[in-house]
Amino acid sequence: MKDFELNLKTKIYFGKNKVKGISEEIKKYGKKIMLVYGGGSIKKYGIFDEVDNELSSGEIDYIEFGGISPNPRLKEVREGIKVAKENDIDFILAVGGGSVIDASKAIACGIYAKNDVWDYFTGEKEIEKAIPLGVVLTIAATGSEMNINAVITNQKDKQKLAIHSEKVLPKFAVLDPSYTESVPKYHTAAGIADIMAHIFEQYFSPDREAVVSDRMAESLLRVCIEEGPIAYRNGSNYIARANIMWASTLALNGLLSLGKRTDWASHKLAHELSAHYDLAHGATLSIIFPAWMKYVLDENTEWKFVQFGKNVWDLSGSDKIAEKSIEKLEELFHEIGLPTRMREVGIEDDNLEEMAENIKEVYGEIGALKKLDYEDLLNIYKLAF
Amino acid sequence: MKDFELNLKTKIYFGKNKVKGISEEIKKYGKKIMLVYGGGSIKKYGIFDEVDNELSSGEIDYIEFGGISPNPRLKEVREGIKVAKENDIDFILAVGGGSVIDASKAIACGIYAKNDVWDYFTGEKEIEKAIPLGVVLTIAATGSEMNINAVITNQKDKQKLAIHSEKVLPKFAVLDPSYTESVPKYHTAAGIADIMAHIFEQYFSPDREAVVSDRMAESLLRVCIEEGPIAYRNGSNYIARANIMWASTLALNGLLSLGKRTDWASHKLAHELSAHYDLAHGATLSIIFPAWMKYVLDENTEWKFVQFGKNVWDLSGSDKIAEKSIEKLEELFHEIGLPTRMREVGIEDDNLEEMAENIKEVYGEIGALKKLDYEDLLNIYKLAF
Repeated sequence: MKDFELNLKTKIYFGKNKVKGISEEIKKYGKKIMLVYGGGSIKKYGIFDEVDNELSSGEIDYIEFGGISPNPRLKEVREGIKVAKENDIDFILAVGGGSVIDASKAIACGIYAKNDVWDYFTGEKEIEKAIPLGVVLTIAATGSEMNINAVITNQKDKQKLAIHSEKVLPKFAVLDPSYTESVPKYHTAAGIADIMAHIFEQYFSPDREAVVSDRMAESLLRVCIEEGPIAYRNGSNYIARANIMWASTLALNGLLSLGKRTDWASHKLAHELSAHYDLAHGATLSIIFPAWMKYVLDENTEWKFVQFGKNVWDLSGSDKIAEKSIEKLEELFHEIGLPTRMREVGIEDDNLEEMAENIKEVYGEIGALKKLDYEDLLNIYKLAF
Repeated sequence: MKDFELNLKTKIYFGKNKVKGISEEIKKYGKKIMLVYGGGSIKKYGIFDEVDNELSSGEIDYIEFGGISPNPRLKEVREGIKVAKENDIDFILAVGGGSVIDASKAIACGIYAKNDVWDYFTGEKEIEKAIPLGVVLTIAATGSEMNINAVITNQKDKQKLAIHSEKVLPKFAVLDPSYTESVPKYHTAAGIADIMAHIFEQYFSPDREAVVSDRMAESLLRVCIEEGPIAYRNGSNYIARANIMWASTLALNGLLSLGKRTDWASHKLAHELSAHYDLAHGATLSIIFPAWMKYVLDENTEWKFVQFGKNVWDLSGSDKIAEKSIEKLEELFHEIGLPTRMREVGIEDDNLEEMAENIKEVYGEIGALKKLDYEDLLNIYKLAF
């Protein structure tokens, strides 16, 4: 089992109306607040009003910075930094999903960038400081509310890069499952695929020794399988929403990767797919993962898929458990209305080589459970077609 | 699902030789260090030397406060407070297991007690401040290294009481599984029973809605079942030790009780047993839990035991899964050399009524999965006899 360090400092407030009281929490960290949000659905569904009421009753003044895009853009981050500096902002409250949180993290550290915030993403500069931030989460998917990661897209250079720094770990996160009840069916499903994909990337490792991390990964996959379809069919089922929301946070806060290597090849395949086609991130993952599984399943990796089949899908007997576990996953994705093939969403097969080449060029060989080169990537895309 | 708050601030350093580097961590918090430990096994097995080397190379002076008893006593805590005050101690490093950590927590807050530290335990006063503390863990069992609890025994008044305060949450914990390789077979087994008992108290709840907490509890129980017997048979199996150690910390750091009520009746039954007979805490739990399970299993609680049988023991079919799950647990305890009946350890049945009365007197009705009154407690003791 590999050594590890763990630092789960984000304080979690979980439940209905938990936004009440965050003024006290915010006052510990700052006085001049910037409220960052996305396209306005928080205003449509009353979440903005609840946050505004809480801040007003706590006598906290804030400025708004809305309009963050689903894949947050570098120019939005730069604009946010400018506004934050002009207003001497010392605390950011991110109200939204992964995109809003990631943009807020980038702004929080970007304020102290000597040259440009993008230097942190390219690795040219190291993040030394950030203003504190807190989160009011409105969709279960990315886990950004309790981790050190942020992904930003630089449209000019066609790059999508990430930072990983404890400086941008949120101080607190409000998880009110009722806020996710207004998330539409398709995005609920895409969120579930995203959560499961995060777990898969950590679960499907060549390392066998981190038994705690593996069993916990299986337990969260079971939550997705049990509660996901319920949340999909009945968006206002609070219990299902609550369990999915909490599983989502735990899926990528660091707990599941402790003591082992992680894979993340499928995310690179999926990101490249979304760079070419306008698909929800979760839908690219539901297309890529079954194909990736079929391709990497061989005599060396079979043990892991058998474990997956037995412990996650309750498969028993000795016959083709590995293959059946992948079929079960495809069935689940279809049950919640997600595609598992590019053809299902009208994608032609004329870009497969280019996509595989792009990944090869940027990353070289990828993957941990099985190392993947250009030919492998192309074969996975073909299986996913 | 019930609302919850979660604050997992303790930084975890997990792996071999992780004691190296803690000087830097300690320097963030204090300059005058008190090193608290137990009966001297840390000196016998070289752990003390490793800590001493690290502190010396970090140029950290410290005073020693050793001799903490297995069930830490109030008079030891009071003595520790006196020594700490005389030496202007501003940081405590606890090197040991649950008893040493609990005593350290009591000393850390007791330094600021206006009258006496015991007032915090009786509830007469509230803990407002504590000096920071860190942990080097040497046995997997109590989970005290990453939680807000401490239990101290007042021998004079024959009371064993607890505090629960975020002020005494350790700042960091070093979990080096190789330190547990010298733990003898019997205490390894008792530790495993203790870990499983902590999980049971949270898992066997009347609430059905906290699916994440339930699935995670099952995953950690599976770790105990898979890795426990290996660690028991072969104490120097690092992988098994590592997984048990990490499961132990996660079992009682708050994660498993989120969103639900917990039971804790069995712990009260077990504590009362250990007040009368000199048994390891884990052995009292391996005696009480199967009896408690048999007694509370009825038509209202069967669903939970069926869940336990299916998800933890891989039982299938529809026949007597609940009963079989309890048998499996008894088999496991016997496999690792633990008793499941009082008779097995030479206890006579002439104290059962008195023990049941004592619990009734102190706590009244106890339990959550099923409420237990005097007659119930006596019946459980009889089943456990």
